[in-house]
Amino acid sequence: MSDSYRPQPEDKFTFGLWTVGNVGRDPFGEPVRAPFSPVEIVRMLADVGAYGVNFHDNDLVPIDATARERDEIVRSFKEALDERGLKAPMATTNLFTDPAFRDGAFTANDPAVRAYAIHKTMRAMDLGVECGATTYVFWGGREGTESDATKSPVDALAWMREALNFLCEYAVDQGYDLRFALEPKPNEPRGDIYFPTVGSMLGFIGTLDRPDMVGLNPEVAHEHMAGLNFTHAVAQAWDAGKLFHIDLNDQNPGRYDQDFRFAAHNLKPAFFLVKLLEEVGYDGPRHFDAHAYRTEDAEGVRDFARGCMRSYLILKEKAQAFAQDEAIQGLLAEAQQASAEFPSYAGGYSRQAAEALREHSFDRGQLASRGLAYEKIDQLLTDLLLGVR
Amino acid sequence: MSDSYRPQPEDKFTFGLWTVGNVGRDPFGEPVRAPFSPVEIVRMLADVGAYGVNFHDNDLVPIDATARERDEIVRSFKEALDERGLKAPMATTNLFTDPAFRDGAFTANDPAVRAYAIHKTMRAMDLGVECGATTYVFWGGREGTESDATKSPVDALAWMREALNFLCEYAVDQGYDLRFALEPKPNEPRGDIYFPTVGSMLGFIGTLDRPDMVGLNPEVAHEHMAGLNFTHAVAQAWDAGKLFHIDLNDQNPGRYDQDFRFAAHNLKPAFFLVKLLEEVGYDGPRHFDAHAYRTEDAEGVRDFARGCMRSYLILKEKAQAFAQDEAIQGLLAEAQQASAEFPSYAGGYSRQAAEALREHSFDRGQLASRGLAYEKIDQLLTDLLLGVR
Amino acid sequence: MSDSYRPQPEDKFTFGLWTVGNVGRDPFGEPVRAPFSPVEIVRMLADVGAYGVNFHDNDLVPIDATARERDEIVRSFKEALDERGLKAPMATTNLFTDPAFRDGAFTANDPAVRAYAIHKTMRAMDLGVECGATTYVFWGGREGTESDATKSPVDALAWMREALNFLCEYAVDQGYDLRFALEPKPNEPRGDIYFPTVGSMLGFIGTLDRPDMVGLNPEVAHEHMAGLNFTHAVAQAWDAGKLFHIDLNDQNPGRYDQDFRFAAHNLKPAFFLVKLLEEVGYDGPRHFDAHAYRTEDAEGVRDFARGCMRSYLILKEKAQAFAQDEAIQGLLAEAQQASAEFPSYAGGYSRQAAEALREHSFDRGQLASRGLAYEKIDQLLTDLLLGVR
Amino acid sequence: MSDSYRPQPEDKFTFGLWTVGNVGRDPFGEPVRAPFSPVEIVRMLADVGAYGVNFHDNDLVPIDATARERDEIVRSFKEALDERGLKAPMATTNLFTDPAFRDGAFTANDPAVRAYAIHKTMRAMDLGVECGATTYVFWGGREGTESDATKSPVDALAWMREALNFLCEYAVDQGYDLRFALEPKPNEPRGDIYFPTVGSMLGFIGTLDRPDMVGLNPEVAHEHMAGLNFTHAVAQAWDAGKLFHIDLNDQNPGRYDQDFRFAAHNLKPAFFLVKLLEEVGYDGPRHFDAHAYRTEDAEGVRDFARGCMRSYLILKEKAQAFAQDEAIQGLLAEAQQASAEFPSYAGGYSRQAAEALREHSFDRGQLASRGLAYEKIDQLLTDLLLGVR
Repeated sequence: MSDSYRPQPEDKFTFGLWTVGNVGRDPFGEPVRAPFSPVEIVRMLADVGAYGVNFHDNDLVPIDATARERDEIVRSFKEALDERGLKAPMATTNLFTDPAFRDGAFTANDPAVRAYAIHKTMRAMDLGVECGATTYVFWGGREGTESDATKSPVDALAWMREALNFLCEYAVDQGYDLRFALEPKPNEPRGDIYFPTVGSMLGFIGTLDRPDMVGLNPEVAHEHMAGLNFTHAVAQAWDAGKLFHIDLNDQNPGRYDQDFRFAAHNLKPAFFLVKLLEEVGYDGPRHFDAHAYRTEDAEGVRDFARGCMRSYLILKEKAQAFAQDEAIQGLLAEAQQASAEFPSYAGGYSRQAAEALREHSFDRGQLASRGLAYEKIDQLLTDLLLGVR
Repeated sequence: MSDSYRPQPEDKFTFGLWTVGNVGRDPFGEPVRAPFSPVEIVRMLADVGAYGVNFHDNDLVPIDATARERDEIVRSFKEALDERGLKAPMATTNLFTDPAFRDGAFTANDPAVRAYAIHKTMRAMDLGVECGATTYVFWGGREGTESDATKSPVDALAWMREALNFLCEYAVDQGYDLRFALEPKPNEPRGDIYFPTVGSMLGFIGTLDRPDMVGLNPEVAHEHMAGLNFTHAVAQAWDAGKLFHIDLNDQNPGRYDQDFRFAAHNLKPAFFLVKLLEEVGYDGPRHFDAHAYRTEDAEGVRDFARGCMRSYLILKEKAQAFAQDEAIQGLLAEAQQASAEFPSYAGGYSRQAAEALREHSFDRGQLASRGLAYEKIDQLLTDLLLGVR
Repeated sequence: MSDSYRPQPEDKFTFGLWTVGNVGRDPFGEPVRAPFSPVEIVRMLADVGAYGVNFHDNDLVPIDATARERDEIVRSFKEALDERGLKAPMATTNLFTDPAFRDGAFTANDPAVRAYAIHKTMRAMDLGVECGATTYVFWGGREGTESDATKSPVDALAWMREALNFLCEYAVDQGYDLRFALEPKPNEPRGDIYFPTVGSMLGFIGTLDRPDMVGLNPEVAHEHMAGLNFTHAVAQAWDAGKLFHIDLNDQNPGRYDQDFRFAAHNLKPAFFLVKLLEEVGYDGPRHFDAHAYRTEDAEGVRDFARGCMRSYLILKEKAQAFAQDEAIQGLLAEAQQASAEFPSYAGGYSRQAAEALREHSFDRGQLASRGLAYEKIDQLLTDLLLGVR
Repeated sequence: MSDSYRPQPEDKFTFGLWTVGNVGRDPFGEPVRAPFSPVEIVRMLADVGAYGVNFHDNDLVPIDATARERDEIVRSFKEALDERGLKAPMATTNLFTDPAFRDGAFTANDPAVRAYAIHKTMRAMDLGVECGATTYVFWGGREGTESDATKSPVDALAWMREALNFLCEYAVDQGYDLRFALEPKPNEPRGDIYFPTVGSMLGFIGTLDRPDMVGLNPEVAHEHMAGLNFTHAVAQAWDAGKLFHIDLNDQNPGRYDQDFRFAAHNLKPAFFLVKLLEEVGYDGPRHFDAHAYRTEDAEGVRDFARGCMRSYLILKEKAQAFAQDEAIQGLLAEAQQASAEFPSYAGGYSRQAAEALREHSFDRGQLASRGLAYEKIDQLLTDLLLGVR
């Protein structure tokens, strides 16, 4: 492959231990790859050019490790990070694998499970901070139901808020330099998961005690599972000042969680996403929350990781070309011209402006008369994406 | 049909002029029913037992009516309302039918179209208030794109906010007793519509100048189009104090907008929704935003309207039975018992509580050991819904 | 629960070893229940009233069992069946769990894997026949792709046909009294699975060497994953004489494979399905290919199994009530009346009939003028389903 | 735009009168473009380089035209075709616009409507043949239900078959050189349409009296509405000898029928489709069943038409490059190597081959051990599609 799309540290490409470490088990099949240790993963990621590595508490430290084992694991992990110059900018809690969480973690009907989930998260936050994380992700994989006969959604929302408020205070009280990033998903593994979309999380944050320290970790595949436009969702999170982190991968809409290599399925939507991230100046990590196909061996996992980053960089170059394409930009500028004169209302409301606007006589025919050349613009983009322009 | 499910004014069942007035045109077919006048619709709705009728500006007043025609229409409409004791609690603007809006209304690239959309909305608000509306709905059917090459979603969000802020001020300045209710929809008629879900709107409201006067008008079918759990969405809107209005109908997920009779497809989800609305004490209108199949004549439209209300009342009775069912309630109470002791963290964060919880030794096996009897609960509900319990 | 819906042998309710034996592992979580042995499952199913039990080869005999172990397992299984009076009417091959099948079984790119899949199926057919199976199911869980760059679909179809033709001959050559039942699924665990729907399989059967011995095993959830009307699909299989077996469960459309208890989500579609099966006189097994929620213990698994059968029987009773409801049947009869006279074309084509029909003058207005009362019919069904009629 | 992708007659690009003639009405909006006459459309299509134009009876001849008007319209249309060297290779019947068809055409409950549908189709076949059509398409837009309480799917299938059998005989009896091409769609405008997928139609054809003269007209968007892999569906139709025609366009899965410009949304799936069509040697028309965005004027409609053809030709060139790419082809060849020896079973069944295969000892570990480099292959394709290879 060409060298011009070689990842650089400033690209801030990160992977989870669980992503390149995925052994290829699925609901119908056994693992196809031997597990890698965290240290091996750090080395592999360094080799392919990543900037950092993220983890769930139990990706790094087994759930039943002793305190001594934990400390030894952390030491060797940090050593490997230092040795290869990688960061661990984000950490999170596994609140879904253990059978204790089968009815939810923060929203389990059983109050003891809810307490255990908070306990486990406090400890995982400690671990994350110890490894250098400044973003703490919450993905509530088990926070949902198969039947709403079994739990009140109003109760569940209140329990979720109670947990997050408690954990925000814990972070502040500990003096941790941490921001929380909530990651929505519509379903799987639960029938329906609470706060299914980026919007749901944005709405929920406004009801928390410390909304300022809580933002979003949107994931391409999760929004696509509900058939939603991910770029629109990310734009809204950005607009609200809440784009704290991002999970890149790919997914065919309306299916099981596929976690494909970034841009592996939806090239054009991936382009719009990269264009948005680059144009607004998002400067956080570009985290790839995906895994290699089950057909792959260890070398295939490397191919997978390289492909994620390479596609991002190709699309970034395309976004720059789009911005500099005179034909495209000319057509866009034309579409944004006013088709008629009208009383200005910019600069906010005034009674006078409202009155003028209310009484103005608009010619609907004139407003509707102009073709906007969107087919042309979109085909020019198609040409640009396919490299024939 | 039995009389015990006869609608009463206190049920607050409302319909739109455009719902029972739907003539049955679709993308592939011509109208199948003759249009009814607004006055005829008022009478029909009174006959079947509705509480009120809602409208878009142009459902009542044609877009090219003169001022004099408008006033005469309003007079006869209000007269019909008074005559039959109906209310008109909600009004809204048609910002989608006219070709002027083909690239959006508040988010059109053309600033003159954006201005016209505000102009049209101010006048429609005047009309709504004149007819007694206290809720003003915004459904932005054209606010979206087919290709994100044609518009920046960041610009679009800013334009949307600019328009709503302006219109909030207008309402306040005019002294109108109006609350705004935003109605999300994921797609159709645009490829992707901005603010596609209830959550997106909740998030957006927090960025407005007057968040207090803006809430939600969630619609069953719109959330189902994205395959989302509508009851969860409504619970979140309620939890945030934003359930200002509701649109009831039905829809098979992942399809075109079907607007079926309430409970016509998803009986169990409809039950959970009615149960939630009744249990939290929602006291706004139950608005049916649906229409009769194209196979129906005028009598079929009445059947359709009666069916919407009847199903709601049957499900309301089922919700009461669920709450009083000792077997079900006993199983739920058991599921909510703590399976183990743990340090309390209720009443909010304290360093002491956090410390105790963090250091507590949880027995995961114990937490995971109890069967929750959710299959039994859900089957008891199935029996109850099917009337064999 | 009431006794009137107690399952009887003549209801032919069957379960798979893998269904009530499901231990509750999912892509994000570890098992929540201890495994049951085949013999324990036979006893449990007998207790709850099932007619039979079905299995994949490796549900019964571990993939690495010796010949001796295999024989011992078969002996004790058959003994348990006899002891409790259960049948094993259907068997199938596990061609998806082992990593060898990660790129497909009959359609793997590697010819050695394709050969192994045929080898394994021959042996599994021997096992099934030995246990009394007369229906042999093929679910090709791994027969698909994540990227069509990796395999030609034309090759894959040819390989699939080659395998099935070979195995048909094997069955005939062995003198087995077996019919093959193909089970389609659109995706999961592969990105896209070949022959995704009931229709695809019907079309494929026509290209086989022995179409007569091959039919369908449609599954509710699989067709719902693609958002398709399952009752229509089953009607087509029946119409083609290909409804050899059926898998009953439930599923929210457009999601991961949920395998819920029959009728747990879509009550009305479940009613239409039961109505069809009973009305056409389908007399094969009603197989429940589902599993209990992960929240359940062993007792919950029993509740799950009982619920599947109970809901079927309730809906069967409703179907009878529908057929005997005079109001409903009267409206249906009316809808089927001709709205105008026309030259008959029944009894097949003749030039004369064609000429008469071609030249007849139809009054479109008349054809379109009659309301069909479908809203009324559908609401009467709603009442009937909810038990208020 | 570059000239190297200029359409040629041998590309056989066709459009429907209804596609470039679409005036932009949708369920929520009025027309945005003035209608073009058939003759104007012929000229426009000739200008942009199309090979032919297809039509529904009423695209060309209004439903209430007199015989004289009809003949005059046909005359001028054929004259325009001749003048500009265009063909009209396909025709079809509009069995969906008129209110008479609101409950179906061939499957309406009303036998008079079913008769009228056959009558209308015979006349439309006459018209098609008169204009030179050799393929006759059946899209049963209204053949479905909103509620299965209103019609038996078994009856509906039988009525559909009765109609097609009758019409096949009519074509034969008239000596028409016509093949029938059935076009499936899962839903819209009906809640569920019978024969929803390519597979359903393949299965249905096998039950007709003259299966040889009936094949498929698959449409990209229709299969995508159900989230199915269109390339797999087309491969199956090809494999069965039933790919008589094809409708190219684009669509986001799980939504209303979008009919976007070919390749406007799913670039990679469009590539796989073009690759398949070119590699198997499909030589029928490439028909674009799509329409311009509502934002477009007449010039935008031309842009739309040009874009459809241009994208096809670019992707055709990419498919050739894929076939000639040594790295890709080398990896594919490697994946198709056998990973182990095994007894051959090629050339069909023999007892000896079966015995040898049944008794062969396979090493599962060996079969599973090889990485298949599919991530690498797929990323090489990504590079190729994006023009950086």
